[in-house]
Amino acid sequence: MTTGANIIGFITSKKSESTFQGVTASGTSAGFHPATQSEIDAAMQKASEAFQLYRNFTGEHKAIFLRAIADEIEALGETLIETAMNESGLPEGRIIGERGRTCSQLRLFASYVEEGSWVEAVIDRADPNRQPLPKPDIRKMLVPTGPVVVFTASNFPLAFSTAGGDTAAALAAGCPVVVKSHEAHPATNELVSLAIQKAAKRTVMPDGVFSSLNGDYEVGQALVKHPVTTAVAFTGSFRGGKALFDLANKRPVPIPVFAEMGSVNPIFIMPNSLESKSESIAKQIAASVSLGAGQFCTNPGLVFVPEAGVKDFAKTLAEAMSHVQPQCMLNHRIFESYLRSLHQVKHEHEISIVYEGELQDAPNIRPSVGITDLEAFLKNPHMQEEVFGPFTLLVTYSGTDDLLKVANTLQGQLTATVFSEEHQLPLYRVLLNDLQNIAGRLILNSVPTGVEVCNAMQHGGPFPATTDSRFTSVGTAAIRRFVRPVAFQGFPGELLPEALHDGNPLKIWRLEDGEYRK
Amino acid sequence: MTTGANIIGFITSKKSESTFQGVTASGTSAGFHPATQSEIDAAMQKASEAFQLYRNFTGEHKAIFLRAIADEIEALGETLIETAMNESGLPEGRIIGERGRTCSQLRLFASYVEEGSWVEAVIDRADPNRQPLPKPDIRKMLVPTGPVVVFTASNFPLAFSTAGGDTAAALAAGCPVVVKSHEAHPATNELVSLAIQKAAKRTVMPDGVFSSLNGDYEVGQALVKHPVTTAVAFTGSFRGGKALFDLANKRPVPIPVFAEMGSVNPIFIMPNSLESKSESIAKQIAASVSLGAGQFCTNPGLVFVPEAGVKDFAKTLAEAMSHVQPQCMLNHRIFESYLRSLHQVKHEHEISIVYEGELQDAPNIRPSVGITDLEAFLKNPHMQEEVFGPFTLLVTYSGTDDLLKVANTLQGQLTATVFSEEHQLPLYRVLLNDLQNIAGRLILNSVPTGVEVCNAMQHGGPFPATTDSRFTSVGTAAIRRFVRPVAFQGFPGELLPEALHDGNPLKIWRLEDGEYRK
Repeated sequence: MTTGANIIGFITSKKSESTFQGVTASGTSAGFHPATQSEIDAAMQKASEAFQLYRNFTGEHKAIFLRAIADEIEALGETLIETAMNESGLPEGRIIGERGRTCSQLRLFASYVEEGSWVEAVIDRADPNRQPLPKPDIRKMLVPTGPVVVFTASNFPLAFSTAGGDTAAALAAGCPVVVKSHEAHPATNELVSLAIQKAAKRTVMPDGVFSSLNGDYEVGQALVKHPVTTAVAFTGSFRGGKALFDLANKRPVPIPVFAEMGSVNPIFIMPNSLESKSESIAKQIAASVSLGAGQFCTNPGLVFVPEAGVKDFAKTLAEAMSHVQPQCMLNHRIFESYLRSLHQVKHEHEISIVYEGELQDAPNIRPSVGITDLEAFLKNPHMQEEVFGPFTLLVTYSGTDDLLKVANTLQGQLTATVFSEEHQLPLYRVLLNDLQNIAGRLILNSVPTGVEVCNAMQHGGPFPATTDSRFTSVGTAAIRRFVRPVAFQGFPGELLPEALHDGNPLKIWRLEDGEYRK
Repeated sequence: MTTGANIIGFITSKKSESTFQGVTASGTSAGFHPATQSEIDAAMQKASEAFQLYRNFTGEHKAIFLRAIADEIEALGETLIETAMNESGLPEGRIIGERGRTCSQLRLFASYVEEGSWVEAVIDRADPNRQPLPKPDIRKMLVPTGPVVVFTASNFPLAFSTAGGDTAAALAAGCPVVVKSHEAHPATNELVSLAIQKAAKRTVMPDGVFSSLNGDYEVGQALVKHPVTTAVAFTGSFRGGKALFDLANKRPVPIPVFAEMGSVNPIFIMPNSLESKSESIAKQIAASVSLGAGQFCTNPGLVFVPEAGVKDFAKTLAEAMSHVQPQCMLNHRIFESYLRSLHQVKHEHEISIVYEGELQDAPNIRPSVGITDLEAFLKNPHMQEEVFGPFTLLVTYSGTDDLLKVANTLQGQLTATVFSEEHQLPLYRVLLNDLQNIAGRLILNSVPTGVEVCNAMQHGGPFPATTDSRFTSVGTAAIRRFVRPVAFQGFPGELLPEALHDGNPLKIWRLEDGEYRK
């Protein structure tokens, strides 16, 4: 099925003599050719040339391309589903759902740039009579930064990989994309890359608007260091994301790395809700912790439970956990790392295990739950570290003051969740306020997994959850990662970008002389 | 007048036994006490505590504080004007103008946060009936990041110093500010700091919302490294800004440094406009190059002139330059560095001087103009380096192709300017398009100096002009440097920040279910 080639704009290329194997449920897949330096240069050069055209494409034109990608991905049919299941170990329902999300994201961004208000047009008109100096006409809008390098994520072989959220956002902004494919799903990557290539050709995009390169960490490094690259998107481990961040900052021209590095997504259960809703909360947490074998960035790895009710709660949670079916982890490396983390939890951090899921034949697993008290937790910062997999740690506390202490000690998180009866919530106003300091999204009476793709989503929290809490990698605002404002002063109408013309021909929302108008 | 103390929230403090002298036109000013580590810690600790209160203050409350600062600065009257003139060597008109700008900026940000739409509220309402999963209620808004360290700029002793644009933007956002005062104007800093302290007390702000510390580079480093600091604003040299940027990225928790490091702000004169408007253009450029002794970040240091008409143009420019009165540079260090740069231009880069302004008694100077051709310019990247002072380099070119080559070779700039007859401008569409890649603001038929403070301003261009071209340090959008989005999921109305309440009680512009409403 797959050829193992790199996709460089409109061609395929296999210059390296060595190849690597993809690992699948049924053994290995075809040999994949890692990109050579000349292939990396070719992809980046093409991206740079494509940018000079693509950045000026209208929203309508980019929308046609994005929708064509979604169509071509759907046209891959069963082949894509089987390949992705085979490489990721994820069940069919999940992969079908993820394909749905991937195509929805592409179509959402298509509509978003077609509508056009995302450029944040601001117009301050001239006032030649202003004293002491005349006021010039200044108009500003967002423009794309240039070629973007996207690292694909092993835990989202479709929705945060080759044609995932980062790629969709960058292409929507007007930035060509060069994907560094993931060694864990190179065949899935090739299929999707060829679908994008087909869509690009069909919709008359410039050669180089999209490329996809195979390879290990060195290929990734070369892409980040390439002078043509203007931004990097990454979803994965702290170690991986931080290394790219450091590398990008050491470039002669530093560039932003938007690394989403996960977190433990603390949940705080208030005494009142434990009394009334213990079972419902336990069930929700059990499902959230074990969703996708606990391999989601918003997986709740830390649950603060009132000391008074913890015994019963732990029992209820264990009961709920025991109904979770064994699940396959993404790959052996991740499975082994999960085992190591569990071992650490038990033997180095001396955490008691209140429920231990049977470990099936590798890489099949079931969730586990640990327990500790607040004092021990506050003493050992390692307990804040993410265990990538279906594990959560219960931490017992006695009063709200304890939680305030926690809220001001925890490192940066993607999310923070509070369970409480609604009428009692005002009691926890201070806690909710303090949690804003450490998280990008606060959730009440629901679990953090299941990240809604919408305008209001913020998926990105203070370091080390991400490298830049000012941006989101999910939702329409993700486009802002790949743009910068440019102001035009004293330009006659015909030379301005259409978004800034008098009369608002694009009918977009604009801030004109201080008022939003359409 | 001044005491040489550090301002730490509501107290003054002089713990160090050593002092340094301020240099003034009439000699030196009182001994200033550099901040000790314990004073740095005290200021940051107070800032951290103040943040917990101040970040929740309403727009109205913050506006009262910002306006009180402007009032207290004006109440300093002649003392401030004399002190700033004395320390900076800048003439009275300039200092009075700069005080006006400083107070306008403070009042502009007051109105901006009072109006309130700056929080970019986004509301996506719930849809419990959505299939396959119910849609949650998610609402997002910008919140302040935390304490901000502001480095004051020697070339703007008021408007980009103690109570300048960075401080105004950070305080408006809800971030406490700790200022690192500039050794070139410590007395001016102390006067303004005490005015801010007075305003803070009078308007019942939390102790620590503002502090100001004296010291050299080491004090600055300690502030950037302090764990409580969440962002840094800097206006100054490339060397200084880049060093802070590197330092901030090496922190255990990296933070953004918004460094505006200046540029050469190229001007492109088209043949048609040289024919018709040579004299007017020469006069505008002469005035722009020599404005404030050439010590503005938007000073045009590079002018591309058609080879055919350069002789006459150079003559006209020299004539215009000869009418410029001698000006005093900011301080001896800058004056000497200007002399070194001029020497380099002449003897290392072998650039011919077409007009050499007489060097008066140091630090008084008059502008100078060099000339070279495009070939030599493209060969020597040093010719792109900023000469901080009233110097500009004419570069001759023969055709538009030459300019496209330049537009794709030049490093990042704050601005790029084109002079052309309006009816001929469409001929230069490609050039204007390419210039977007290298500059933050494009200007037609006017000079880059004189940066309008408005919504549409973009003062920030690609590296090395700034460390982050996605942000501006001038205009209302400067507030965005000190905020990040937080999403609230499933929150009942009463627990949401007021900006996100149903019914829009603050009457701000919000993006509600995809539409802007007020």
